[in-house]
Amino acid sequence: MSEGRIFNFSAGPSMLPEPVLKRVQGELMNYEGSGMSVMEMSHRSKVYDKIITDCEANLRKILGVPDNYKVLFLQGGASGVFAALPMNLAANGKADYIVSGNFSGGALKEAKKIIGDGAREAGTTKDLNFTRVPTQDELDLDPEASYVHICYNNTIYGTKWHYDPETGNVPLIADMSSCILSEPIDVSRYGVIYGGAQKNMAPAGFAFVAVRDDLIGDEMGITPKIWSFKTQSEKASMINTPPTFPIYVCNCVLEYLLEIGGLEEMKKRNVAKSALLYDYLDSQDFYTPHAEKIDRSMMNVTFRTPNDELDKEFVAGSVEKGFTNLKGHRSVGGLRASIYNAMPYEGVEALVDYMKEFAAAH
Amino acid sequence: MSEGRIFNFSAGPSMLPEPVLKRVQGELMNYEGSGMSVMEMSHRSKVYDKIITDCEANLRKILGVPDNYKVLFLQGGASGVFAALPMNLAANGKADYIVSGNFSGGALKEAKKIIGDGAREAGTTKDLNFTRVPTQDELDLDPEASYVHICYNNTIYGTKWHYDPETGNVPLIADMSSCILSEPIDVSRYGVIYGGAQKNMAPAGFAFVAVRDDLIGDEMGITPKIWSFKTQSEKASMINTPPTFPIYVCNCVLEYLLEIGGLEEMKKRNVAKSALLYDYLDSQDFYTPHAEKIDRSMMNVTFRTPNDELDKEFVAGSVEKGFTNLKGHRSVGGLRASIYNAMPYEGVEALVDYMKEFAAAH
Repeated sequence: MSEGRIFNFSAGPSMLPEPVLKRVQGELMNYEGSGMSVMEMSHRSKVYDKIITDCEANLRKILGVPDNYKVLFLQGGASGVFAALPMNLAANGKADYIVSGNFSGGALKEAKKIIGDGAREAGTTKDLNFTRVPTQDELDLDPEASYVHICYNNTIYGTKWHYDPETGNVPLIADMSSCILSEPIDVSRYGVIYGGAQKNMAPAGFAFVAVRDDLIGDEMGITPKIWSFKTQSEKASMINTPPTFPIYVCNCVLEYLLEIGGLEEMKKRNVAKSALLYDYLDSQDFYTPHAEKIDRSMMNVTFRTPNDELDKEFVAGSVEKGFTNLKGHRSVGGLRASIYNAMPYEGVEALVDYMKEFAAAH
Repeated sequence: MSEGRIFNFSAGPSMLPEPVLKRVQGELMNYEGSGMSVMEMSHRSKVYDKIITDCEANLRKILGVPDNYKVLFLQGGASGVFAALPMNLAANGKADYIVSGNFSGGALKEAKKIIGDGAREAGTTKDLNFTRVPTQDELDLDPEASYVHICYNNTIYGTKWHYDPETGNVPLIADMSSCILSEPIDVSRYGVIYGGAQKNMAPAGFAFVAVRDDLIGDEMGITPKIWSFKTQSEKASMINTPPTFPIYVCNCVLEYLLEIGGLEEMKKRNVAKSALLYDYLDSQDFYTPHAEKIDRSMMNVTFRTPNDELDKEFVAGSVEKGFTNLKGHRSVGGLRASIYNAMPYEGVEALVDYMKEFAAAH
C-alpha cells in the first residue's frame, strides 16, 4: 500500500488494485496519446470502441463465457437488472425467487411490480435471519417458471451458495454482484449471471449481464430500450451513451487480473485471506460469526462482539488503526469485513491482529 | 491547453475543463486525506455523502433551482429518463411530445411503450429535416395531457428552442442534455428539466432531474425503484449505489463553474464562441449552415461543404490539424462542431482558421 492509503473493508464500492489506480491516474489527462481523457471521448470513437470491445473480450476470457452467451454492460446497477429480468425473461408471467438476504428480496419486489404474484418466493431462510441459504429440500420450485433467481453471495449476511440448486429445465439466474471475479465459475450452469460492478470489477456505474442466447428476444412491450437484452446485444451495449469511464476502469482491472494469473490465482489469494479470518473466528469465543460454516462467504465476513456497545467500540478503535467500513449493515448489525479481490492479505492480517488485541482488552 | 491535448468537437461525451481534469488526477489515489480514491468509497460513508450533497447544492445554486423542486441523480442517462417520465408523470395515460429531432423522437418512442397512443406527437418539423423547431402555431396541444415534452437543444441538428411553448396549465418538460449549464435558465418555467451529464456536466454515467414537488407521487405500479422520482427524492438519489465517480467529477465541474463566475460568465464565453463560428458561416458561401438562424444552437453548430466528398476531405484534414469529432451525425450528414462549455475560445478560432483555409483551397 502506498503511503497514506488505508485498508478499506467497505461492502461496495470498495478497494481497487493499486496498480490499476496508478495506471488510471497516469492516463487521466491524455489516454495513449489520443489527446483526450477517457472521460472526454465520444463513445462512438475508434479509441473508445477498442476500450469497450477489449473490456467485453477480457471479461469473456477471464470468466470463460461460452460463445452462446451475450455479455452486456447496462446502467442502473444490479437494482436496475432486478426490473429488467422479468421484462426480458418472464413473458409467461411466472418466475421463482429464492430469498436468502436483502438483495434477493429486493429482486423479488421489483419483479412483483412487473408480473405481480407471478413472481413467487420459492424458498427463504428469513426465519433463520439468513444465516445460511436454503437447502434443496427447502425449495418449492414451479417447473413452469421462466427462471429461478438466486443471489449467489449475500453481501449483508456474509453467506454464499455452496451448491447450485437443481432447477430441472428452468434456467437458473444468479446475481453475482459481490463475488464475481473472486474465483472461477462455470457460466454454462446459469441462464443469466449479472451483477453491479462496484465490488470486484470497477467503480460504481454499471452492471454486467451474461445471458444465454436462447433466452433473448421474448421481451415485454414495456421494456425500456436501455434494458432490452435484445437491443443492447445487437448494439454492443451502445444503444445510448454507456458509462464510459467506469467501463474503462473495469478493463484496467481485467487486464490486471490477467497479468496476475486470472481467477485461479485470485481464488488462491481469496481462500488464503478468508481462511485467515475464519480460522481465527473459529479459534476463539469472543466474536460470534453470523453465517453458518457451510455457506460462508469468501468476500464478506460477518461477526459480532458480545454486545452492541462493544461492536461500536470495535468500530471506533478500527478507525484509529486506519481501517474503515467495518460496521455491519443496519439490517443485521454487528461487524462486517468485506475482503474483496483488491484487499491485500496484509489488510486481513492487520485486521486479525486488531481483533486479537481488542478481544484481549475486553 | 496542455501539451499533447487536442480540440475535441465531440457531441458528447466531450471536453472537460483542464483544471477539473488536473484536480481529479491529483486526488485520484487519495481524496483529501481519506486514504481512498473516490472510486473506492462506500456511497454511505461521510466522506462521500459530502461529495454528493455538495454536488446537489452546487447544481441548485448554479441553476437557481427553486426550493419546491427536487434534484435527482439517476442512472440510465437521458434515455433512461425517457422511460421514467411516463411512469412517474403520466398516470392519466396522456402526454404530448413535440418532435424537433432524434432525441425528442426517441423520448416519444419510449413513452409509447408505457402509455401507447396516449403518448402523442403534438408537433414536429420532420418535413423540414429539423432545420428549426416548431412555432407555437404549428403545435396541436391537448389541454388534458399530463405534460408537454420538448428537447431544448437538438444536438444532432444544431437547433435550440428560442422560446418556451405556451402550454397553459400543462407542465412543460425539457430535455436539456446538450445545453444545461451553458447559460442561465429559469427553472420555474418547467415542470421538469433533465438531461444526461456527459456534455457540460460530467463524464457519462448519470442523468440529473429537477422535478417540481407537486408532480411527484402519482407513479405507475411498474416504476422500477431506481427511477421512482418519489423514492429517489426521499432517499437523496441513494436507493442503490449511485455512479459515485461521475457524480464526484460533476461536483468538480460545478465548483469550477462557480469559481469562474457561474452561468452569466459561461453564457458570455459561449456567445462569443458561437458568434465567431456563425458570423464566419454567415460571411461566406462555401459552407451551408443546417439550422435556420432563429433557432440556432449555441452548443452544436451544423454545416456542410458543397458536397459529401468535400465533407470527408474536411474531416480528414481536420484530424491532421489536431481536431477530432467534426463529422456530422449519420442522420443529418455534413459537419458538426460541438462547442460545449469546456471548448476554449482558441479551439473555435483554430477551427475557423482551418475552415477558411479549406474553403480557399477548394
